[in-house]
Amino acid sequence: MTSLEDLPLRPELRGRSPYGAPQVPAAHRLNTNENPHPLPAELLADLGAALGHAALELNRYPDRDATALRTDLAAYLSHTSGEIVAPAQVWAANGSNEVLQQILQAFGGAGRTALGFTPSYSMHPIIAAGTGTAWVDGSRAPDFGIDRAAAVAQVRDVAPHVVFVTSPNNPTGTAVDLDTVAALYDATEGVVVVDEAYAEFARTGTPSALTLLPGRPRLIVSRTMSKAFGMAGLRLGYLAADPAVVDALQLVRLPYHLSSLTQAAARTALAHTDALLATVDAVRGQRDRIVDALPGLGLTSVASDANFVLFGRFADAPAAWRALLDRGVLVRDVGLPGWLRVTAGTAEETTAFLTALGEVAPDHRATLGD
Amino acid sequence: MTSLEDLPLRPELRGRSPYGAPQVPAAHRLNTNENPHPLPAELLADLGAALGHAALELNRYPDRDATALRTDLAAYLSHTSGEIVAPAQVWAANGSNEVLQQILQAFGGAGRTALGFTPSYSMHPIIAAGTGTAWVDGSRAPDFGIDRAAAVAQVRDVAPHVVFVTSPNNPTGTAVDLDTVAALYDATEGVVVVDEAYAEFARTGTPSALTLLPGRPRLIVSRTMSKAFGMAGLRLGYLAADPAVVDALQLVRLPYHLSSLTQAAARTALAHTDALLATVDAVRGQRDRIVDALPGLGLTSVASDANFVLFGRFADAPAAWRALLDRGVLVRDVGLPGWLRVTAGTAEETTAFLTALGEVAPDHRATLGD
Repeated sequence: MTSLEDLPLRPELRGRSPYGAPQVPAAHRLNTNENPHPLPAELLADLGAALGHAALELNRYPDRDATALRTDLAAYLSHTSGEIVAPAQVWAANGSNEVLQQILQAFGGAGRTALGFTPSYSMHPIIAAGTGTAWVDGSRAPDFGIDRAAAVAQVRDVAPHVVFVTSPNNPTGTAVDLDTVAALYDATEGVVVVDEAYAEFARTGTPSALTLLPGRPRLIVSRTMSKAFGMAGLRLGYLAADPAVVDALQLVRLPYHLSSLTQAAARTALAHTDALLATVDAVRGQRDRIVDALPGLGLTSVASDANFVLFGRFADAPAAWRALLDRGVLVRDVGLPGWLRVTAGTAEETTAFLTALGEVAPDHRATLGD
Repeated sequence: MTSLEDLPLRPELRGRSPYGAPQVPAAHRLNTNENPHPLPAELLADLGAALGHAALELNRYPDRDATALRTDLAAYLSHTSGEIVAPAQVWAANGSNEVLQQILQAFGGAGRTALGFTPSYSMHPIIAAGTGTAWVDGSRAPDFGIDRAAAVAQVRDVAPHVVFVTSPNNPTGTAVDLDTVAALYDATEGVVVVDEAYAEFARTGTPSALTLLPGRPRLIVSRTMSKAFGMAGLRLGYLAADPAVVDALQLVRLPYHLSSLTQAAARTALAHTDALLATVDAVRGQRDRIVDALPGLGLTSVASDANFVLFGRFADAPAAWRALLDRGVLVRDVGLPGWLRVTAGTAEETTAFLTALGEVAPDHRATLGD
């Protein structure tokens, strides 16, 4: 029996565990920020037709440049942000994870450094490690916000080649104001990646960093169809940036990285944007319902622009996580002492969560001494 | 207008061009080793049903471990090789390019070295560069074969962390004998990757390196569904190795890297393995037809175990490439002076190719003085 220790693995990978939310059976899976609303029937019909059509040519390599898909994504971004985003400014890959990996391959890598303000999306440092990029934890304010002056000072001090800003931030939920993004851009000569995976869920009046793109060729805004579009199974992430950034990513992308099926399905989903995003308001309503209910349970939350809520505080968050799971509700322990994260989904899911939390809170919430 | 030079790109990427066969319109596209046979009607029907079913759950993340797909791939490999290959020995990704990238992320990377015997699959050094792995060109014999003693000496001398052996070799076509693979394995403490993308097309009696897996935990055999399975548009590559290798790759894979659609379509195709591979004999027949016709045109070829033929010699291969394209036949100039590569496909394609070549050969073939 060979073990990992017997293989010539890179030394920095030794002792690590594969990333991923624990896959635990539960009646209510509120741990990975999926959109639980079923896909619209008319989309499913069109998907069947589009995939069947794409299957006819599956023996041929896909469009290496995903030109039609990037055109559709550009149209969506232009429509949603009010900025004109051209197809040449858009790039797509198998999930925003692959988009981010390509960014790090082009602008990070061995001998280079990336900085993100943690706690944030935990894949950022993992993808950095996978590309040999050194990682520096930037710090946040006690309320998990980014203090502009402190953040700028950290970026000036570290001089990273890649700066990550997650907005809305995962797992804490709050969007970052654009003046902070602009200040961070001015503070670095590296690229600034604003990870907007949850942007569509932001509270009204929260602008996207897409509006900052003109005149900032080192700014990259990444998005995904996994969340608001309800397409987690499709694995379609994308970005908008200066066309020169897209040129750079084409130097490191694997040729034909996006399958014909992925391209066809994503285009079909984008043709149903209005129907898909019709669930966003309902999800935001459930998110706000969770936020509003927490004080009554002696709990609190962090302001959320996403489809999840970071809630607490607990004396022992892993114990509270277990107590919720015992009641059929799977939430995410993101490793922040005192806090857990719950996905906002359907009204039924929220009811189940709040009912379970009502039972769990009295025994598990932190008291003044914790 | 921002250019790549204005961006903080990694220095070693400067001046590079994106990899990929030139995409040129042509009546006969014989440049990327696709399988031109249309997919069987019963497979298309089943694909439609399977993809429609998978679409119902597209709002959920896919199976992160692709367990069912890996089980099906293991069954196929066991059936085709006579070796028992367990699901835990199999890993899959978006094309064998991603499989190879993950191997280099785990076992190569900055400060480490990979060696391959060139000319070979040109993505190997490109993926090495993309992962920060140093690349060393190993040499081949004048007939493009691997001289066992010389290859072992090179591996001993360089001590690479990853050794690539492409068998059948692309772009030259010949399979590598297993004694050579075993000798290279014994000559290194690194991992040995046998890239068997074209294995199903090998001449009768050519064994797979899968038969060498028992007792060799550092040996990896990679495969693809792009070629013999006729599924280039699906992007499904995979490998077989010791389960510890699969454990290692799970440390660097991006979570949920394989979409639900990819997993469903690949499983459906594997359920139709016999029908899909029924085209392999026909393709081999056309390959041998090309090989047999070349001497009559004053040309020659390299022994081929693949669905393509390296043919020549030409006084000026790029000029011969252009002359064939002028006659509607797109082949591949792989950068080997005097040689071109043509994909063996349908009988009609072969006829078109040989007709065009008959017109082109007299003016372009090398003479004794070249």
